[in-house]
Amino acid sequence: MKKNHYLRRLGALRHRMASGAPAPCDASWIIQPENRRYLSGFEAEDTHFPESSGSLLINRNRSLLVTDSRYTLQAEHEAPQFEIMTLKQDLADALPAWVTDMGTRTLGFEQDYLTWELHRRLNERLQALSPSVDLIPLNGLVEEMREVKEPEEIRALEAAADLISDVLDEIVDRLRPGMTEKEIAWEIEGLARERGAEGLSFPPIVASGPNSALPHAVPTDRRLSKNEPVILDLGARLNGYCSDMTRTIFLGEPSPDFKTIYRTVRSAQLAALKEVCPLVESTHLDAQARNLISEAGFGAYFGHGLGHGVGLAVHERPRLGHRNPVKLQKGTVFTIEPGIYVPGKGGVRLEEMVVIEDSGPRILTRNDRFYDF
Amino acid sequence: MKKNHYLRRLGALRHRMASGAPAPCDASWIIQPENRRYLSGFEAEDTHFPESSGSLLINRNRSLLVTDSRYTLQAEHEAPQFEIMTLKQDLADALPAWVTDMGTRTLGFEQDYLTWELHRRLNERLQALSPSVDLIPLNGLVEEMREVKEPEEIRALEAAADLISDVLDEIVDRLRPGMTEKEIAWEIEGLARERGAEGLSFPPIVASGPNSALPHAVPTDRRLSKNEPVILDLGARLNGYCSDMTRTIFLGEPSPDFKTIYRTVRSAQLAALKEVCPLVESTHLDAQARNLISEAGFGAYFGHGLGHGVGLAVHERPRLGHRNPVKLQKGTVFTIEPGIYVPGKGGVRLEEMVVIEDSGPRILTRNDRFYDF
Repeated sequence: MKKNHYLRRLGALRHRMASGAPAPCDASWIIQPENRRYLSGFEAEDTHFPESSGSLLINRNRSLLVTDSRYTLQAEHEAPQFEIMTLKQDLADALPAWVTDMGTRTLGFEQDYLTWELHRRLNERLQALSPSVDLIPLNGLVEEMREVKEPEEIRALEAAADLISDVLDEIVDRLRPGMTEKEIAWEIEGLARERGAEGLSFPPIVASGPNSALPHAVPTDRRLSKNEPVILDLGARLNGYCSDMTRTIFLGEPSPDFKTIYRTVRSAQLAALKEVCPLVESTHLDAQARNLISEAGFGAYFGHGLGHGVGLAVHERPRLGHRNPVKLQKGTVFTIEPGIYVPGKGGVRLEEMVVIEDSGPRILTRNDRFYDF
Repeated sequence: MKKNHYLRRLGALRHRMASGAPAPCDASWIIQPENRRYLSGFEAEDTHFPESSGSLLINRNRSLLVTDSRYTLQAEHEAPQFEIMTLKQDLADALPAWVTDMGTRTLGFEQDYLTWELHRRLNERLQALSPSVDLIPLNGLVEEMREVKEPEEIRALEAAADLISDVLDEIVDRLRPGMTEKEIAWEIEGLARERGAEGLSFPPIVASGPNSALPHAVPTDRRLSKNEPVILDLGARLNGYCSDMTRTIFLGEPSPDFKTIYRTVRSAQLAALKEVCPLVESTHLDAQARNLISEAGFGAYFGHGLGHGVGLAVHERPRLGHRNPVKLQKGTVFTIEPGIYVPGKGGVRLEEMVVIEDSGPRILTRNDRFYDF
């Protein structure tokens, strides 16, 4: 992304802050790593929560990036449109002076990321100021902005999807009965890194046989056998953007039951895909897949939502489920991932990443490892 | 760890809760991943904060592990001494019924991990109960228990240190001028995984030339040159326990200045090591290293503390710095990692992991890649 992208995003943030929705504040304090990167371009990662590499303080005419000496040079390089402030003391002790200096009376904070304790300590100091400063929940202000992707973001997501499509292709060619799920997971990671990924979007799911009945199975030492399902759910991060895709593979010939399950899941996916267009409701898409699965008699075995937004985070807004309808805008990137999971037996999930265009969906994951059962 | 270890830890937690210090509560709600694993043996990881794989509810006679259907089987297998409760709704909606069922009036929570928003939502529901339930900060109750390691934990930490010592040995043999920092970081990860590590304790630091002046440099595309310092700071996780070690390597002959810096850092490390014994004050150890570095004229270039505890988390209690003295108990495992960082020029850091025994320190990292300048 270029500098003017970040300036445009800052402009959009300021516009929203000024409009008072969803949070009426005159400055925003951004600590959530993806929100921070989205607004500033600062790429440093936070290792172990709640360790932090920095935060942003933004009001109508100033943009501060608060970090410590480990990251000062990196921040200056990556976020030239920000004033870089290097912490020399505890964050809660240092912040009030900057907040006051910016003439702040109401400071927005990310309530789903800030810890109770840091809020308490900071609030104590802000209330002691004269005039005092009130902390106001931001209510997803930046997450909302991230929901519709810019053209540059769609290109970045496409590149991440391309990369993981290649990895999937290669790993499927390598699958052999006798390999363990853990071995495969580690090979996936290696393949992604060799292709230039910064890392995986999430620990890969490699779930074979009965393990495939667990939607979020963790790879085990179980060895693959012939004819049983193997769910491969993987994603990689490239230039900060995530991909996420799933295929279910059989080494050999699945049982008739699994052929039916597979066919049902694939039909459900196609049914949802067919309805993707600007302003479609999330619940409408979920219903296309869910009704088809229910009519086939597997309704009790599809326990999760249809999909989720993908961007700087692998799970972000919007959530697509059977509740909480949202109108999906053009430029939204999300997954369509129906599944059927039969406890003790096994499961099938298929997942694509799509972007909404004027003419309908465009599939970003490009891999035709589908069966024609 | 065997089942009776966890029962013993639960007993110790109950004892502390009953004694009212540091938190006067009749049940504890544990969401922090390492605390959860320490008390239950449940190994599932939380991927992206604030996503969670589960939490514990513990009072004087009951132990609940609250999770969702993704992890039910794993929880039953890994934490047999807990009642496994599978969430069918939102956590804040489900918890109050269980809390009430346990006869709770005061519920301890981890204030440095719980988000402001989840606290708010849960508190609203708990206050609406009759009788109402008060949320009380746990003030590091479990972190305090984790500070002194059991013999089994010391063995686990030793195994993790062994593993990373081997990795360090091998990577140093592979270092050649022209390799990039990023390439080396990725090789480190591969070597650790080949040796059975679950993963790294943290993204490895590979900082060459002027980059070595940044204590927490992130690996770049910079290529190694001859004679300049390369800081390698790496750790691996094995059976949940972390290791952490640092060496500074020169491919060739360093300048006289860097020889002096190296000699000073190593002397500072040995000076601190010499004083390690049961009940020594953390600030006393820090002072041994810091005074030596200051007397050599580099005081301004040692900007961080002497070290930190290592266990299930790579950074945990105690913190060893020049402030906040704590008496270090026998069985405490921590790092001793003085450094000198000259901006624009480069730096040297050396780090060992040690455990306090009756007779003094025992070094867990075993790698003699030190220079005799």
